[in-house]
Amino acid sequence: MESVLLRLLVVLAGVAALGFVGYLVAIILRESPGNEKMQEISHAIRQGAMAFLRREFVTLAVFTVVVFIVLAVFIEPKPLVGIAYVCGTFTSALAGWLGMNIATLANARTANAAIGSWARGLKIAFSSGAVMGFCVVGLGLLGLSIIAFIWEDSHVWLGFAFGASSVALFLRAGGGIFTKSADVGADLVGKVEQGIPEDDPRNPAVIADNVGDNVGDVAGMGSDLYESYVSAIAASMVLGVIVLGGVKGMLLPLLLSGAGIVVSIIGALAVRPKDVEASFEKQVARAHRTMNIGVYVSNILMIIASFFIIRFYIGELGLFWALISGLIAGFLIAQATEYFTSAEYNPAKNIARAAQSGAAVTIIEGIATGFMSTVIPVILVAAATVVAYLFGDLLGIAIAAMGMLINLGMSLAMDCYGPIADNSAGIAQMANLGKEVRERCEALDSVGNTTAALGKGFAIASAALASLAWLATYFQVAKVEIASLTNVAVIAGLLIGGMLTFVFCALAMRGVGHGGFAIVNEVRRQFREIKGLMEGQAKPDYVSCVDIATKMALKSMLLPGILVLTVPLILGFTLGPRAVAGLLAGSLLTGFLVAVMMANAGGAWDNAKKFIESGAYGGKGSDAHKAAVIGDTVGDPFKDTAGPSLNILIKLVGKVAVIFGPILVALVAL
Amino acid sequence: MESVLLRLLVVLAGVAALGFVGYLVAIILRESPGNEKMQEISHAIRQGAMAFLRREFVTLAVFTVVVFIVLAVFIEPKPLVGIAYVCGTFTSALAGWLGMNIATLANARTANAAIGSWARGLKIAFSSGAVMGFCVVGLGLLGLSIIAFIWEDSHVWLGFAFGASSVALFLRAGGGIFTKSADVGADLVGKVEQGIPEDDPRNPAVIADNVGDNVGDVAGMGSDLYESYVSAIAASMVLGVIVLGGVKGMLLPLLLSGAGIVVSIIGALAVRPKDVEASFEKQVARAHRTMNIGVYVSNILMIIASFFIIRFYIGELGLFWALISGLIAGFLIAQATEYFTSAEYNPAKNIARAAQSGAAVTIIEGIATGFMSTVIPVILVAAATVVAYLFGDLLGIAIAAMGMLINLGMSLAMDCYGPIADNSAGIAQMANLGKEVRERCEALDSVGNTTAALGKGFAIASAALASLAWLATYFQVAKVEIASLTNVAVIAGLLIGGMLTFVFCALAMRGVGHGGFAIVNEVRRQFREIKGLMEGQAKPDYVSCVDIATKMALKSMLLPGILVLTVPLILGFTLGPRAVAGLLAGSLLTGFLVAVMMANAGGAWDNAKKFIESGAYGGKGSDAHKAAVIGDTVGDPFKDTAGPSLNILIKLVGKVAVIFGPILVALVAL
Repeated sequence: MESVLLRLLVVLAGVAALGFVGYLVAIILRESPGNEKMQEISHAIRQGAMAFLRREFVTLAVFTVVVFIVLAVFIEPKPLVGIAYVCGTFTSALAGWLGMNIATLANARTANAAIGSWARGLKIAFSSGAVMGFCVVGLGLLGLSIIAFIWEDSHVWLGFAFGASSVALFLRAGGGIFTKSADVGADLVGKVEQGIPEDDPRNPAVIADNVGDNVGDVAGMGSDLYESYVSAIAASMVLGVIVLGGVKGMLLPLLLSGAGIVVSIIGALAVRPKDVEASFEKQVARAHRTMNIGVYVSNILMIIASFFIIRFYIGELGLFWALISGLIAGFLIAQATEYFTSAEYNPAKNIARAAQSGAAVTIIEGIATGFMSTVIPVILVAAATVVAYLFGDLLGIAIAAMGMLINLGMSLAMDCYGPIADNSAGIAQMANLGKEVRERCEALDSVGNTTAALGKGFAIASAALASLAWLATYFQVAKVEIASLTNVAVIAGLLIGGMLTFVFCALAMRGVGHGGFAIVNEVRRQFREIKGLMEGQAKPDYVSCVDIATKMALKSMLLPGILVLTVPLILGFTLGPRAVAGLLAGSLLTGFLVAVMMANAGGAWDNAKKFIESGAYGGKGSDAHKAAVIGDTVGDPFKDTAGPSLNILIKLVGKVAVIFGPILVALVAL
Repeated sequence: MESVLLRLLVVLAGVAALGFVGYLVAIILRESPGNEKMQEISHAIRQGAMAFLRREFVTLAVFTVVVFIVLAVFIEPKPLVGIAYVCGTFTSALAGWLGMNIATLANARTANAAIGSWARGLKIAFSSGAVMGFCVVGLGLLGLSIIAFIWEDSHVWLGFAFGASSVALFLRAGGGIFTKSADVGADLVGKVEQGIPEDDPRNPAVIADNVGDNVGDVAGMGSDLYESYVSAIAASMVLGVIVLGGVKGMLLPLLLSGAGIVVSIIGALAVRPKDVEASFEKQVARAHRTMNIGVYVSNILMIIASFFIIRFYIGELGLFWALISGLIAGFLIAQATEYFTSAEYNPAKNIARAAQSGAAVTIIEGIATGFMSTVIPVILVAAATVVAYLFGDLLGIAIAAMGMLINLGMSLAMDCYGPIADNSAGIAQMANLGKEVRERCEALDSVGNTTAALGKGFAIASAALASLAWLATYFQVAKVEIASLTNVAVIAGLLIGGMLTFVFCALAMRGVGHGGFAIVNEVRRQFREIKGLMEGQAKPDYVSCVDIATKMALKSMLLPGILVLTVPLILGFTLGPRAVAGLLAGSLLTGFLVAVMMANAGGAWDNAKKFIESGAYGGKGSDAHKAAVIGDTVGDPFKDTAGPSLNILIKLVGKVAVIFGPILVALVAL
C-alpha cells in the first residue's frame, strides 16, 4: 500500500515536470516571434536543426534496430532488455527533439522580447532552456520508473540506460562535430576570405553555424545529461536492490529524483528577472545572479528534502551524506570552472597577456592552464567518492552521482539558456535590430557563455561520477569481486582504456577538420557560382551547408562508435572480465582528465579573446588579438567537440561492459 | 666458485664499457678542434654547459644530503639505503658529467672533421654519443653490481636506483626547462625582433641555446635512461631473488646486462661510415643506415646471447621470451615513432598540408596526430607486459623492461649523436665554414633529428615498462597483495595519480614560459646597453644568459619536485598503501600517454616545418611556413620539456613509493 503510494508520487513528479514544460511553452509562445526578417531567419535555423535531427534519427533508428536484435537474441531477460533499450532511446530522442523544437522557436522571441527589455529577453531564453531541462528529468524519471514498475528486474533497467547512451553518442558526439565544422567553415571563408562580419546573412554557412549552437549545446548537452541522469538513477537502483533489498532499494533513488524535480521547479520559478537600467557589465552580473538564485534555492531545498526522505524511508543517514557529497562537489566544480575560464580571473587574463608574445605562447599558456585546471575537479570527485563510499559503500558512490545530478532540471535550464541567447544575438545582428537591442542580446549572450562553460565542467564531472557508479554496477553484474592492479590483465585493460580516450579525441578533432574542409569548399562554390550573392541580391543555399555538416558528422562518428562498442567486448573475450574493469577505469581516468583539460583550455582561450576585444592589450585588430583568435579557434574543437565527446565515451564504454558483462562471465566460465 | 666467476664477469663487462669509453675519447681527441673561431665558440658552449652542471650539482648535493639524512634515519637497513642512494646519485651525476664533457669537446671536432669528409664527421659525432651511452651502462652496471656484491639486501639496491632518479629530476626535467627557455629567448629576440639569423654569434642567448642542446639531450637524456636502466635491473634483481632464489635471482639480471654491454660494443664498432659523393638526401639516408647496422648487430647478438645465458643458467626459457618481448616492443615502438614524426610519412605531411589553412588548423592537426600516435606504443607495451607476465610472472615484466633497455649503450649512442651533430652545424654556421662543410654538418644534423625523435619515443616506452616493473616491486616491498579497482582508495589514488601528470606538465610548460621571458628581457637589455653589439664590434655577455636559464630551471623544478616526493607519502599515510598502488598506476597511465602524445606531436610539427622549408606549399616565408613555425614553437616545450619530464615523474613516484613503502605498511599496521 505504502509502496503503491510512493510509486504514484514518483510518476506524479515526472508528470509535474512535463506539466511545467507545458507552462513554460505557453510563456514562450505568448511572445511575438518578431518582424518578418526575424521570423525568416529563425525559420531557417529551425528547419536546419530539424533537418539535422531527422537525418540523425534515421541513422539512429537503424542503429537501434540492430542493437535491439543483438540484445533480444543474446541478453537475458530476452527480449525485455532490448525493449527497455528501445524505450530509453525513444525517450531520450524525444527529450532532445522537444527541447530543440522549443529552442528554435524561442531564439527570435528572445530577441523580440529584448526589444521591450532585457529582463523579458532573459525570461524567454531561460524558460526555453528550462524546457530542455525539465523534458530531460521528466521523461527520464517517467521512463525509468514505468519500466521499473512493470519489470522489477535490474537488468531491464540497465537496458533503458543503454538506450539513452546511444542517443547521446549521436546527438552529443555527432552534434559536436556538426557545430564546429559549420563554425570553422563559416569563419574561414566568411570572415577571413570574404571579409564579411560574423552572422552575416550572405554567408551560406551562417545558418548551419546557428543550427550548430542548438544541435551541440541544446540537443547534445541535453542528451549527454539525460544519459548521466538516467545512469546515476539506474546504477543506484541496481545497487540499492542489492544493499537495501527489493522495493526500498528500487524506490529510494526514484523518490529522491522526484523530489529533485519538485525543488528544481521551485528553483526555476524563483528566477525572476527585474528590469533596471544599468551598464553592460552590471546587466551581465545581474542576469547571472538572477539565475544563480534558482540554483541556491533548489540546492538548499534538496538538502532538506533528501534529509527527510532518507531519514524516514531508510532510517539512517549514511546515504544522505553520500548524496550531499556529490551535490557539494558538483557545486564547487562549477566554481572552479568559472575561475579557470572566466575573463574576470587570472588564468584567462594570463592567456590574454601571453597573446602579446604571439600565437605559439598563447597556445602553450592555454594548454598549461587546461592541464592545471584538472586539479580541483579531480580532487573533488575523488573526495566525494571516498566520502560517499565511507558512508554508503558502492551504493554510496551511485547516490553521490545522483546527488550531483539531482537538480538537473534547474542546472540544465541554465546550461541550455546559453545557446538560445547566442542565437538571439545572432538574429538581432542579422535582422539589423537597433544598437540598444543588439547590446541587450549580447549581454544575455555573454552570461550564456559563462553558464555554458560551467555547464560543460558540470557535465564532465557528473559523467565521471556516473561512470564510477556504473563501474561499481559492473562489478556486481559481472560478478567481478576483485580486479587488482597486481593482475596483468587489469593493467593491460587500463592501458588500452586510457588509449581509447586519446584515439576518440583524435578522431573527433579530425572529424571537425574534414567537416570544416567540406563546408569551406561548399561556401566557396556558392560564392563563386551564385551570382549577386556578395551584393546581397541573391540568396545563398543554406540547406546544403547544413546537409553537408550533418553527413560529415555522421560519417566521422562511425569509427569512434564502432571502437567504443567493440573494444570492451574484444578485450573481455580475450583477457577476461577483469581486463574490462581495467578498461573502464583507464578510459574513465584519462577521459575525465582530458575532457576537463580541453573544456577549460577552450573556455579560457575564448574569454581571453573577449578580454582583449574589450580593449586590453591593444583591443580588436591588434597583434595580441590575432594571436588570441588563433587560441580561440584551437579551443573550439577542444571545448565543443573533443571534450564533450569524451563524456559519451566514458559512459558508453561502461554501458557496453555492464550490458554484456553477464555473457562475458558465462563465456569465460565455459 | 661459479658465483665468484660470474660476479667477476659482470664487473669486467662494466670495466669493458669504461675501457671502450677511453678508446672513443682517444679517437675524438685525436681530431683537431678546428680554427680559432671554432675553438672559441666550442669553448663558450663548454663553459656554459659546465656552469649549468656546476649549479645543478650544487643544488643536487644539498638535496642529496637532505634525502640521505631522511633515508639514514627512517629506512631500514640504516644507513645502508642512504649510502646506496648517495652512490646512485654520484654515479649518475658522473655519467652525465663525463658524457657532456666529451660532447662539448666533440662538437667543434665534428665540424672540423666534416671539412675532410662527412663520414669522418659522422664518426666523431657518433663516437661522442657512444661515450655517453657507454658511460651510462658502464657506471650503471658497475655501481649496481658492486653495491649488490657488498650488501646482498634488496632494499639497498633500491636505494641505488632512487639515487639515479634524483639526478634525472635535476638533469632531465631541469635541463628540459633550461633548453627551451634559452631556445625561446634566443629566437624571440634574435630572429623575430632583431631579424638576425639563427645561431648568429651577436645574439647573447645563442650560446645558451647551444648549451641547451647538450644539457637537455645529452646529460638529460643520459640521466633519464640511466635511471630506467638501473631501475629495470634493480627491479629484476629484487623480484629475481624472490622468484629464483638468492644468488641466481641477483646474478641473472646482472649477467644479461653485462652481455648487453659486450654486444653493444660490437654493435658500435660495426658503425663504419664510408665516404661516397652523394646528394644531401642520400647522405642523410646513408648516415641513418650506417648507424642502424649497429642496432641490428647488437639486437641479433643479444637475442643469441640471452638465449644461452637463460638456457644454461636458469634451465628453462620463460624469461628469455619475456626479455625478447621487451626488446621487440622497443624496436617496433621506434619504428612507429618514425612513422608518426618523420617528414617522409603521412602524419607530418598532413600537418604541413593543414598549415595552408593557418596556425589554428596546424595546431589541431598536430594535437590530433599526437593523440593518435599513442595507439601503437600502448598496444605494444600492453602486449609485451602480457606476454612477459605469461612467461615469467611479475619477474617477467621486469625482465621485459630490461629487454627494452639491454642494448642501451648502442641506442643511447644514436640518441646522443643528435645534439652533437646539431651543435656542430651551429658551429659551422657561426664560424662561417664553407657552404659545402655547412651542408655536410646539416646532413649530419638532419639524421640526428630523426634519431633524437626515435630516442624520445624509446625513452618514454622504456620508462613506462620500467615503471611497471617498479610497480610490481612495490607490491612485493609494501606487501600489497591486492589493490583492486573495487577499492575506493585505489580509485582515489588512480585519480590523483593521473592528475599529478597533468599538474607536472603544466608546471614544466609554465617553467619554459617564465624562463623564456627572463631570457628575452636579458637579451633585450644587452642589445640596448652594449654598444656596437648589433654591428659585431662588441661581444655579448653569453654567461649571463646561461646563468639566468639555469636559475629559472632550478626554480621551476622546485614545486614539481616537492609534489612528486610528497604526494605519494601523503596519500599513503591517509588512504593507505593500496591508494599508493592506484597512484602509481594512474600516473603511469596518463604520464605514458601524454608523454607519447607530446613527443610525437612535437616531432611531427618540427618535421612538417622542415618539409615546407624544403619547398612544399610555398616553402620558406610562405603563409604555410609561418603557420608551421607556430606549430613547431608549440611543439618545442611539448617534446623537449613536458614530455621528457613525465618520464621522470612516473619513475620517481614509483621510487618514492617503493623506498617508503615499508614505513607506510608499518604505520598503517599500528
